Amino acid sequence: MENRRILLTQRPEGMVDETTTRLDVAERPECGADEALIRVGMLSIDPTIRTWMNDAPGYLPPIQINDVIRGSGAGVVVESRTSRYNVGDIVFGMTGWQEWALATEDNKFSVVPAGMGLDLPTVMNVLGVTGITAYFGLLDVGALREGDVVVVSGAAGATGSVVGQIARARGAKKVIGIAGGPEKCAEVVERYGFDECLDYREPHLARRLRSACPEGIDLYFDNVGGEILDDVLLNLAMRGRVVLCGAIAQYNDTDQRSGLKNHTMLIMRRGRMEGFIILDYTARFAEAQMELAGMVLSGDLRHQEHLVRGLENAPSALNLLFSGGNHGKTLVVVDDSVTLA
Amino acid sequence: MENRRILLTQRPEGMVDETTTRLDVAERPECGADEALIRVGMLSIDPTIRTWMNDAPGYLPPIQINDVIRGSGAGVVVESRTSRYNVGDIVFGMTGWQEWALATEDNKFSVVPAGMGLDLPTVMNVLGVTGITAYFGLLDVGALREGDVVVVSGAAGATGSVVGQIARARGAKKVIGIAGGPEKCAEVVERYGFDECLDYREPHLARRLRSACPEGIDLYFDNVGGEILDDVLLNLAMRGRVVLCGAIAQYNDTDQRSGLKNHTMLIMRRGRMEGFIILDYTARFAEAQMELAGMVLSGDLRHQEHLVRGLENAPSALNLLFSGGNHGKTLVVVDDSVTLA
Repeated sequence: MENRRILLTQRPEGMVDETTTRLDVAERPECGADEALIRVGMLSIDPTIRTWMNDAPGYLPPIQINDVIRGSGAGVVVESRTSRYNVGDIVFGMTGWQEWALATEDNKFSVVPAGMGLDLPTVMNVLGVTGITAYFGLLDVGALREGDVVVVSGAAGATGSVVGQIARARGAKKVIGIAGGPEKCAEVVERYGFDECLDYREPHLARRLRSACPEGIDLYFDNVGGEILDDVLLNLAMRGRVVLCGAIAQYNDTDQRSGLKNHTMLIMRRGRMEGFIILDYTARFAEAQMELAGMVLSGDLRHQEHLVRGLENAPSALNLLFSGGNHGKTLVVVDDSVTLA
Repeated sequence: MENRRILLTQRPEGMVDETTTRLDVAERPECGADEALIRVGMLSIDPTIRTWMNDAPGYLPPIQINDVIRGSGAGVVVESRTSRYNVGDIVFGMTGWQEWALATEDNKFSVVPAGMGLDLPTVMNVLGVTGITAYFGLLDVGALREGDVVVVSGAAGATGSVVGQIARARGAKKVIGIAGGPEKCAEVVERYGFDECLDYREPHLARRLRSACPEGIDLYFDNVGGEILDDVLLNLAMRGRVVLCGAIAQYNDTDQRSGLKNHTMLIMRRGRMEGFIILDYTARFAEAQMELAGMVLSGDLRHQEHLVRGLENAPSALNLLFSGGNHGKTLVVVDDSVTLA
């Protein structure tokens, strides 16, 4: 019984390439006392995985060389020696990039409720890391208020698209997206219902932000970092809030980064810039998941998933997040027989 | 009756020089209905004045060319056509850099209570912009908690030295200063009672901060900006707070600034970085002033003032703030016959 898995062989400089990882075949893990064995069905491909590959301070320790790439995923319980999981349960947690994972005391999974009427990709997207990040980032860290002018970068992306739709549902006055290229910008407006979407590849973003938000930006949900954040800071409204969710533009940076120049606008505008990690919200996940499930079922939340087939393609799927080659949430299908209901 | 005053002649690049301002002689202003005429005694020299000389977005409009340099000061009421002030009152407000100022409906002054037992320089320092900035920045924006590890840059400066002493009085576990040169660092520890003071002119500040704060920095009161902020961000504790009070290191920058590189640590450590301006706290000034006056009178707050004599020396006094040539709060004495009690 084999367990195909992807190991970190070398810390990447810039994008992940064939020297970064290798496909390894190990024995299928044994299910010990108080453990459950999980057949992995699908991996969630998140930008944060790229940060774990660096030997740098982070909110989790770096992935060690020759360790399985860390990441979340969903699977089905095929053997259980604990009352926490039943055989047949679909569970979500830190599977890592492999075909078989163990649920242990130190690595607990959550059971995905059956019968919600949502398929597994939707659950992995909207009710997974992506949707929960959007929810708490916007409402809790960003403290969205009715009438806010909200700007979201990475607006065509999995998190950004959900942020904009929650903002709209919760009474934002204006929701402006930032995305790369005319195709994505059109998608942000037409599919996700943003008021407008600015293409960061075109010049003078700061000026175009000023036209779109003449009274300033009350809340910026930052999925990308880099120069776009500087342009937004120039247009911050009084008491504006910047939610730092990710800094995709910087994750692969190997050069001396140019650095943020306009953070002193936080003084001028009495602004606040705050980072967060959804691990801090685990006790409140159900709150987000219930509201998000309701929005999907009522048709108020559009979403899409970008499925990549085959465990061996997980490294290139990760690169899609940075090249912009994906549409919606990127998921890797490891075993398509694992489904919800 | 003359009014000597200092006008902005040209926007400075970098430090203020002889082309930036000129001494002008105008007629003494007439006291109109509902106004009061003030003989200016002393000017408060604050770093923010340098930002008003730029033609850049700020929390107040730029000073216009040929206008009197904006700034706060204290003086004595010599004529009053309003019940708000009595002749002989010592008042504090936006005098500008001139010998005579008018209190009007749009430019109100506050009356400094006589009989507190504090002299005018002390009031201008601790109960003025400086002390109030320290108080609300630390307690309100920074939300100081008992047991916090607090780091303060510009620690030998007027604001920084007060911040550290309030932090100590309010139960900080450790108070670390950052200042320029061994003399200032010694002053921070010996005079102001900080636990330690790091010289930013010595190499490896980030590493020395780690040694001084092995469990991370809970609260950073930033008076300088620049690279020091980057070094602090690397050492931020979980839920660490950065109070952006000023960015002295950047106010005179004419080159492309190198920019902030480590703001993504706000994500890793779930940190918050927030700017403020004390104009937002005017309704609560008395709260700060009472506590600060109490601390001075009980001997719990050490302070010092750096007096520069002569209105004509106000521009060079402003430069002292950036060259580090001052010790304590810089004040310009315009007329030394204006005193408190």
